[in-house]
Amino acid sequence: MSTEIGLGLIGFGTVGSGVIKWLQENGGVIEKRTGYKFVLHAVADVDLERDRGVVLPPGVLTRDAEALIRNDKVQIVIELVGGLDHAKKYILHALSLGKPVVTANKALLAESSLSLFQEAAKTGTDIFFEASVGGGVPVIRALRDGLVSNRVSRIYGILNGTCNYILGRMESAHATLEVALKEAQEKGFAEADPSLDLEGIDTAHKAVILASLACGFHVPMDSVSIEGIRHLAALDMTYAADLGYRIKLMAVIEEDNGKISVRVHPALVPHANMLASVSGVFNAILMRGDGVGDILCCGIGAGRDSTASAILSDVAEAARNLTCKCSRHVSGLGKARSGDRLKPVGETNSRYYLRLALFDKPGMFGQVATILGKHDISIASVLQKENCSGKHVPVIFITHYARENAFRAAVSELDALPVVGAKTVCIRIEDF
Amino acid sequence: MSTEIGLGLIGFGTVGSGVIKWLQENGGVIEKRTGYKFVLHAVADVDLERDRGVVLPPGVLTRDAEALIRNDKVQIVIELVGGLDHAKKYILHALSLGKPVVTANKALLAESSLSLFQEAAKTGTDIFFEASVGGGVPVIRALRDGLVSNRVSRIYGILNGTCNYILGRMESAHATLEVALKEAQEKGFAEADPSLDLEGIDTAHKAVILASLACGFHVPMDSVSIEGIRHLAALDMTYAADLGYRIKLMAVIEEDNGKISVRVHPALVPHANMLASVSGVFNAILMRGDGVGDILCCGIGAGRDSTASAILSDVAEAARNLTCKCSRHVSGLGKARSGDRLKPVGETNSRYYLRLALFDKPGMFGQVATILGKHDISIASVLQKENCSGKHVPVIFITHYARENAFRAAVSELDALPVVGAKTVCIRIEDF
Repeated sequence: MSTEIGLGLIGFGTVGSGVIKWLQENGGVIEKRTGYKFVLHAVADVDLERDRGVVLPPGVLTRDAEALIRNDKVQIVIELVGGLDHAKKYILHALSLGKPVVTANKALLAESSLSLFQEAAKTGTDIFFEASVGGGVPVIRALRDGLVSNRVSRIYGILNGTCNYILGRMESAHATLEVALKEAQEKGFAEADPSLDLEGIDTAHKAVILASLACGFHVPMDSVSIEGIRHLAALDMTYAADLGYRIKLMAVIEEDNGKISVRVHPALVPHANMLASVSGVFNAILMRGDGVGDILCCGIGAGRDSTASAILSDVAEAARNLTCKCSRHVSGLGKARSGDRLKPVGETNSRYYLRLALFDKPGMFGQVATILGKHDISIASVLQKENCSGKHVPVIFITHYARENAFRAAVSELDALPVVGAKTVCIRIEDF
Repeated sequence: MSTEIGLGLIGFGTVGSGVIKWLQENGGVIEKRTGYKFVLHAVADVDLERDRGVVLPPGVLTRDAEALIRNDKVQIVIELVGGLDHAKKYILHALSLGKPVVTANKALLAESSLSLFQEAAKTGTDIFFEASVGGGVPVIRALRDGLVSNRVSRIYGILNGTCNYILGRMESAHATLEVALKEAQEKGFAEADPSLDLEGIDTAHKAVILASLACGFHVPMDSVSIEGIRHLAALDMTYAADLGYRIKLMAVIEEDNGKISVRVHPALVPHANMLASVSGVFNAILMRGDGVGDILCCGIGAGRDSTASAILSDVAEAARNLTCKCSRHVSGLGKARSGDRLKPVGETNSRYYLRLALFDKPGMFGQVATILGKHDISIASVLQKENCSGKHVPVIFITHYARENAFRAAVSELDALPVVGAKTVCIRIEDF
């Protein structure tokens, strides 16, 4: 009654062991729902020894990923090695044999989706990548299928659980970034080298995938403006809270008059917005379609079990297409940009939170206001608490909307003022 | 390059005109994304005159739905007439001809999904119903595809925008239900006859669809415990807020040890839970999978444009299956229940909010506590504000967990006490 489908998995790490665990535990559930019985014929990894907490039948584990791909019993290839070169080679190999690929590799997709999807199109084969954004939250399906009839004008995403956890701890425990990071590492929420997360690169990889799907052409990584969270202080969380905001690391994709801008940066999110309530390692994606309005999807954005759930949802779809002998049209990731549809981030408009370190001298406000005014930036409000210590006072300026380029220029001038004692912290305010 | 697919639409009402509008406005977007060019060959309705704000080419509008279904150019049938008998006849006719059906008809699916899906299976044809729950929020896809590898142990849904709007107005404006309802009707958020909404029936229809998908067998309407919102007062919103809660009309689907219970009722939701922030006509669905954890999807749950977005997402999927000559396995809706997997709601456990109208006499608390104690219900807290008017005082009891049946029995006894001046209001507290 059920159709048997053979799987091969490359990369027996955390997510790989999750895929195996859930295939073993819930294979029967999947079979009842889909009519497919999945059999894992081969698992390839360089490490054949380490205990991952799941038991494989003898003969399944191998070092030879290429042989796994060639194995006739393997009909679908799951790529979970991560990184760029090896993963790309494996995926291209599988596609060249007409074997669909399921991957969670956001970095590779962001860097190389053009060549991967063009190869897939040549052989009429599918690449599935639900796990690349938002872990188990089915956001790729929501955007690709659910919103298929919508022009998507905005996507706002909290896409990195590590940063979201750290920012939350800086807010709730008034911890420094270093302390919050250490805590996240101890809990397994942050890597030993957290640079890709803290510097916003991981979020940018995911933003590229979402933007390409939404816009219908490949948005290159080098067009994304990326700002991480390293320069933020617990003080900023406190001031933001006083003003009715929370600080989140956001991916923002904006389409205006056919022009797209993609940026990653910390942002002040109003408390009343549901994105402000997204806490801990949760991810959330808000998509705005011209028909559907705002759709919010939220859930655990990473980790073994959540990511495995996304991988297996793709495996089920791959199996359906395999047995139907069809592949699906995925717009965006495989199509090069035509004409100049990207808007430089400098031309976007935002409101801003500026934290200046000012020496407490008469006339200091006037100097700041003069520079802002010169760049056509008007001040919406100012917040200064009593100076209880230190040489300079933190003063918060909330501005009205102005152009990003103007801000950058103004802040350069501000930082050169003798009354400014440290680099000014600028955080965008998102009004949604 | 694109494949042309012919559509027929039965029911030229609000949602029908939305489908036409978005096909006309965004047909090009859909074609770029899917490779399908959709052509609407026929629209059937009894009213050929009314202006719906969209213009159809001559010859497309007809009174003859059966001829539309037989029309060779119509490859996919969109059923938007609503109601039970006619809609069912049309759907069965289309399925018998092997034409896939896209419908938003939750009432029909809840009542008749067994016969519809069994007919579909006979002819290897698809029924799509994304628009039946949550409007444009792709919750059916999330549950059916995204969570395919998960055992789903809980679903909590705010599935009726009319009730959610009314409860929100009762809370924020201290309005009576009647005033809030009138306001909702004036804004077009409530029908002239709002019974299906206010009495929880509409929510129950949607709960049946979600429960059947999650559990893998058809959950019959008569197994759902349904309680509407008519008995709630603005006072309850105020007390709930004082206690840190908001009141929402919820669908709750619980699976414990293989037994399912499905219920619809107002519930106190803790402020900190994201479901508490779902306001106005928004819908939200929280799904708990054993792999993926909690997934929340939220968006506008009804109305012309949002529902049309869901319909068109189904049309795109129907087209893919048509051109691939395959149909999909949908577990649950077409499968009769095997064995007794339904748990009567009386056997479920909840905490409760009880609002008693007590005559302010010595010993009244003791009488209430005695009855609750007799039924093994312990009191977690009591809230009584100063009595400024009226013959009796509203007193709020928050209980610990106890069995539903015990509550019902206790409340019957309480209502018979001479110190109790009106029917006790009982609202479940959901802790998620």
